[in-house]
Amino acid sequence: MDAEAQRAVVAAARVGHLATVTPDGRPHVVPCCFALEEGRIWTAVDHKPKRSLRLQRLANVRANPRASLLVDHYEEDWTRLWWVRVDGTAEVLEGGSERDWALAALAAKYAQYRDAPPEGPVIALAAERWRAWTAREPSLGS
Amino acid sequence: MDAEAQRAVVAAARVGHLATVTPDGRPHVVPCCFALEEGRIWTAVDHKPKRSLRLQRLANVRANPRASLLVDHYEEDWTRLWWVRVDGTAEVLEGGSERDWALAALAAKYAQYRDAPPEGPVIALAAERWRAWTAREPSLGS
Repeated sequence: MDAEAQRAVVAAARVGHLATVTPDGRPHVVPCCFALEEGRIWTAVDHKPKRSLRLQRLANVRANPRASLLVDHYEEDWTRLWWVRVDGTAEVLEGGSERDWALAALAAKYAQYRDAPPEGPVIALAAERWRAWTAREPSLGS
Repeated sequence: MDAEAQRAVVAAARVGHLATVTPDGRPHVVPCCFALEEGRIWTAVDHKPKRSLRLQRLANVRANPRASLLVDHYEEDWTRLWWVRVDGTAEVLEGGSERDWALAALAAKYAQYRDAPPEGPVIALAAERWRAWTAREPSLGS
């Protein structure tokens, strides 16, 4: 899968898996909706209850900005499996113009967000390394 | 989702997402097939080329045994989203009776493994904490 194809499948994916590290060094992974534009991946905290804004993923990114987003495909024909992973540096956007831009990108991608815009912070992941694997062209090491 | 339902959906899931931490403190996440029995989750390295046995996930578990397996459901009706995450302590099994048991459990769950048994090590994750989230009964903090 070449770089252009990797970007295309990630941009089109409806869900990804965001991995971060907790302040005490444990792995953390959650599914998330996201938007990708020009090497930046945005995912929003969309829950409304006030206490949900204290999310583990936000605490993790604030303590250790390394983050990964994985997009993958599963089916029972294992010759058709693939994944693409983006590793990079993340930050939490509480407000400001990039958060506004991110919310617009999320609303453009997801009709669900047009009805109920996310109210919480946005995590912005700056893509630094792209890795891809397909069952038909195995590339190793992950 | 109660504890019994959490175990049932994880046991039945065809694919999960395994998160670990690299020796230099970065998050790492890969999709994986797995089997769950009595609080232990097994996932195998099934690629045959010799160099694939030097996988990042194995190096991670050897350096930091904390691992998480996430099982989740996505669909466009966001009121139907859910995930279950199992956090625990992992180890790499290069051989021995637990690895044999794990390979039997994987072959029982996946016909694909009956045709081509995994040749590499098995990662065994001892489940220590189960967390679940459903869109209809939000539980917060992740």
